[in-house]
Amino acid sequence: MAVYTDIDDTTLAEMLSAYDIGPALAFKGIAEGVENSNFLLETPAGRYILTVFEKRVKAQDLPFFMSMMGHLADKGFPAPLPVAARDGDALRTIKGKPAVIATFLQGMSPRRPSVDQCRAMGAGLARFHAALADFRMRRRNGLSLESWPRLFESHEAEADKLVPGLADQILGDLAVLKKRWPKTLPAGAIHADLFPDNAFFLGDELSGVIDFYFACTDYLAYDLAVCLNAWAFERRGEYNLTKGKAMIAGYESVRLLEPREREALPILCRGAAMRFFLTRLVDWVSTPTDALVRPHHPMDFAERLGFHRQAKGVEDYGG
Amino acid sequence: MAVYTDIDDTTLAEMLSAYDIGPALAFKGIAEGVENSNFLLETPAGRYILTVFEKRVKAQDLPFFMSMMGHLADKGFPAPLPVAARDGDALRTIKGKPAVIATFLQGMSPRRPSVDQCRAMGAGLARFHAALADFRMRRRNGLSLESWPRLFESHEAEADKLVPGLADQILGDLAVLKKRWPKTLPAGAIHADLFPDNAFFLGDELSGVIDFYFACTDYLAYDLAVCLNAWAFERRGEYNLTKGKAMIAGYESVRLLEPREREALPILCRGAAMRFFLTRLVDWVSTPTDALVRPHHPMDFAERLGFHRQAKGVEDYGG
Repeated sequence: MAVYTDIDDTTLAEMLSAYDIGPALAFKGIAEGVENSNFLLETPAGRYILTVFEKRVKAQDLPFFMSMMGHLADKGFPAPLPVAARDGDALRTIKGKPAVIATFLQGMSPRRPSVDQCRAMGAGLARFHAALADFRMRRRNGLSLESWPRLFESHEAEADKLVPGLADQILGDLAVLKKRWPKTLPAGAIHADLFPDNAFFLGDELSGVIDFYFACTDYLAYDLAVCLNAWAFERRGEYNLTKGKAMIAGYESVRLLEPREREALPILCRGAAMRFFLTRLVDWVSTPTDALVRPHHPMDFAERLGFHRQAKGVEDYGG
Repeated sequence: MAVYTDIDDTTLAEMLSAYDIGPALAFKGIAEGVENSNFLLETPAGRYILTVFEKRVKAQDLPFFMSMMGHLADKGFPAPLPVAARDGDALRTIKGKPAVIATFLQGMSPRRPSVDQCRAMGAGLARFHAALADFRMRRRNGLSLESWPRLFESHEAEADKLVPGLADQILGDLAVLKKRWPKTLPAGAIHADLFPDNAFFLGDELSGVIDFYFACTDYLAYDLAVCLNAWAFERRGEYNLTKGKAMIAGYESVRLLEPREREALPILCRGAAMRFFLTRLVDWVSTPTDALVRPHHPMDFAERLGFHRQAKGVEDYGG
């Protein structure tokens, strides 16, 4: 939630001169996205979001993200469509940083998603996977199983500061995850970060999905596991089974989970909670307390791990 | 340039239920304004800016600002029009803070205004004054002559840190300003803070004026003096006479300055530079270096004071 790069009217006009969308009629830095700078741009041709990629997004990954967004939008999925300049390229440079202009999506991010919104998100996630079934580019998930022990290595003491004994629990989780992580499941392009603030709704209808900068190639059911973690928990690690049921039913209204995916769902959920616990722990420790953007507290996901540890099967998630 | 108040979809929906503008279709915190939190709001009825007033704006001043904006918009001046809720009141409360929804204005703020934009701003300022000629509410300018010695009192050492000897120069300025400040000039409602980032342009045409939260009742020519300081200087205290001429000519294309206003212009310009030097000095010293919003550096206005000290008459400003 910040604007890191300052773009003045002259710099913007220069960038827009490469496009066929006309001059800027309005331009406002917006407080959206943690990793990048975002601006709302209006021209006679419509409304857009200009994203300037700050250093956390790797330039070599951008073609994957751009193609994925374009592929989704082409299939009618409500993702922002990167707009190509006259030379055919959507990926530009502004102030020495990579940047893209993509179409604006209406909708509101729910702070506390309703059951109907969880159902809609489940169905939307399956449509997202279906729309990408013929997407051929690949990107490794750099925040999956093999990265987790490394992320945790130098942070055990910090974990114990949160809750005495937590470090040992995490080490136990990591051992279980390593042992039980599924070897093969239906895979494809996944969002991998589909939290409610990356989804827009008009009422209970999904109107947009944004922020593709963790997207990668991985198990489709892992994406559902991320969503269950992000959408179906209340505060203090309480799993809302009604929301979980709605989300899984929504997903299966579009694409039925295979038996092996249902079986793997608890361990995938535990892994997804681990991924967010660890990155939040690292960000929490490494971000100065006076930083522009306060990181998320890792405790939410430590509590979710507690739920996953005692889950017996997919039925505990409403599947 | 920050969003200080967090507003979620439920809180917003509750606020909008008091209006006749329909539900939110989009809502984004925007990086605009230093004093307040601003959000771009879209509903089926149009686009708006929701402003939440943070503590620097006094609640008892809000009716003055709201009425002034409404008066301007009613007269066809491009100011945001506060939108009344069904109960007739535009001033609301959200998260315990005063808030207003006003109409959205298109346009871009120029980082480095052109001569034509300075001319348009001069003419726009005179139209602004004309539109408010029959505005009857009054608000004292709390940042004028009598406030300056008090603002400077505890900051002399800081001034000398910027430039050795500056404190004595400022004390000299304050004595001159006290002695020569005009006793009576045409007065009325003024903007008092019309910097380029508070003005929108479409090309060279003025399309909007925003941020009325220093507006007050004072000499009309003082408002022009503020604008000359804000629009006609280059870096390092260099006065761009071409821009100054264009701005004054623009103003006089709508309303001729009286001889006593022309005569007073140099001392008014010196006073305006003093006002911004002092508030920036105070903000600079009192803002922690790690704050969310870095204040403007006071040195720009110390350098402008240097120009004003040696100005002989209105002709030095292009009048």
